[in-house]
Amino acid sequence: MSTEQESREAQLVDRVVASFDDTPDPRLRHLMQALTRHLHAFVREVRLTEQEWQQAIQFLTATGHMTDDRRQEFILLSDVLGASMQTVTVNNQAYGDATEATVFGPFFVEGSPHIPHGGDIAGSASGQPCLVEGTVRDAAGKPVPNARIEVWEADDEGFYDVQYGDDRVAARGHLHTDTDGTYRFWAIQPTPYPIPHDGPVGRLLSATGRSPMRASHLHFLVEAPECRTLVTHIFVRGDALLTSDSVFGVRDSLVKDFEPQPATTPTPDGRDLNGQPWSRVRFDIVLAPDPGSRSSTLGG
Amino acid sequence: MSTEQESREAQLVDRVVASFDDTPDPRLRHLMQALTRHLHAFVREVRLTEQEWQQAIQFLTATGHMTDDRRQEFILLSDVLGASMQTVTVNNQAYGDATEATVFGPFFVEGSPHIPHGGDIAGSASGQPCLVEGTVRDAAGKPVPNARIEVWEADDEGFYDVQYGDDRVAARGHLHTDTDGTYRFWAIQPTPYPIPHDGPVGRLLSATGRSPMRASHLHFLVEAPECRTLVTHIFVRGDALLTSDSVFGVRDSLVKDFEPQPATTPTPDGRDLNGQPWSRVRFDIVLAPDPGSRSSTLGG
Repeated sequence: MSTEQESREAQLVDRVVASFDDTPDPRLRHLMQALTRHLHAFVREVRLTEQEWQQAIQFLTATGHMTDDRRQEFILLSDVLGASMQTVTVNNQAYGDATEATVFGPFFVEGSPHIPHGGDIAGSASGQPCLVEGTVRDAAGKPVPNARIEVWEADDEGFYDVQYGDDRVAARGHLHTDTDGTYRFWAIQPTPYPIPHDGPVGRLLSATGRSPMRASHLHFLVEAPECRTLVTHIFVRGDALLTSDSVFGVRDSLVKDFEPQPATTPTPDGRDLNGQPWSRVRFDIVLAPDPGSRSSTLGG
Repeated sequence: MSTEQESREAQLVDRVVASFDDTPDPRLRHLMQALTRHLHAFVREVRLTEQEWQQAIQFLTATGHMTDDRRQEFILLSDVLGASMQTVTVNNQAYGDATEATVFGPFFVEGSPHIPHGGDIAGSASGQPCLVEGTVRDAAGKPVPNARIEVWEADDEGFYDVQYGDDRVAARGHLHTDTDGTYRFWAIQPTPYPIPHDGPVGRLLSATGRSPMRASHLHFLVEAPECRTLVTHIFVRGDALLTSDSVFGVRDSLVKDFEPQPATTPTPDGRDLNGQPWSRVRFDIVLAPDPGSRSSTLGG
């Protein structure tokens, strides 16, 4: 590239960056100037053609028109570009052996049913019973009693309750850890499902040879005083989709052994499963300290 | 940042980049992998918060919902971020003293009226008469006869004909250079106008202390065989908006002297302007060679 061309491109970047100099909010100024630099670096690096620019405008337009109160195609786009997962990663700094976070997803619902210790979240959801148990500890290794755990998952058809549109509540619930920090509940064995792929994002996945499937998982949201809220999933060791999860939610540390149990194995709590096989998994959770809460060593 | 955190973020980028490895079209693969790298670099550099991510999703959603057959809010967004102008710059490499390109804009219309040498494009558009003249030459300095020149501009209310929605055709036309490469036509003195700013992009400009105004300009599209098609504007020297053009279209080389003429100055072609003041401007155009056309030295 000629010096003159290089200079024209660089001067343009400088002019756009400078146009944001008078932004009253310093954080917005920083965001817009950084966005400008990275966006222009992309256009310059790939030598974006005018036709490709047109296609990008058309893609964003189609994505906007696909989005309504029920379908958020821009979130799907962020998800399949790993931008959602990177935002989660940036906002959940590694802290000792604290459990890693992953994407929240669109299927959490406020007001889930309360489940007693050892209870069942499945409700009417179909799937093979799965016993989930573990402890919640803080970063110092101390058990956290009364931590609130929200769990939710798809049924074995690959659908969350809210996707049926008939107000059913199933395969979701919340419970609290015991005085010793332990928890236990029955759920269903997670199964894989695709993200919605009948829109522009689905066509992008198709054009790039990617699958819309999510690796099988069970969602957790864990809250306790003075701890950083944890939003995560656990995944099923051996699932073929672990390496191609469409939203990049998998972390090695979140892949767990879901141990299959033949129907003849008695359940530890004596539950009668009517002759079905079942599985069990252990998920020990470590919560990082809340970066926003005052350290107790600083006193009142 | 801890090594572990750094590693988690970098590994995620690698995984997303690798997810596009099997894209059948190599150009699409390159684009998606570069987009991934730049997008993640932005998220990581600014340490995007989850609330800011939500706001970005909401902004894109609103931009999508503002866009319809008549209003293209994503193009406006690209324009105010300088991405449109950078794309133009990348696709019109500096070539000797070839005239610089600038943004095309949304107001070009196919099928404009033909204007004879010395004719008037104004039609019913209001504004002070302006005589525009110059030559079209190739990069070797040779005059280009019969080059096609399309010109279009807003009236002195700041509106293009198509914005009135009443099928009028005014302040646009096409003409051809003479055998000696010269051209001359009457138009109207360009006046500033805002880009549409009643949507999300307008709110972004407002939040960042930027003006939606475009510097006054007259659009040119110049085509000739074996030459690179030139899409550009000329701007008015002395216009206070030259340094804050909302879409970054201004290039110093495109700022021209529009010389004001009192009503008493006779027009060079003897045109009777009914006692109005007028202006004149000279714009000598140099066309780069068409990068896609075969060089004549290579023979048939």
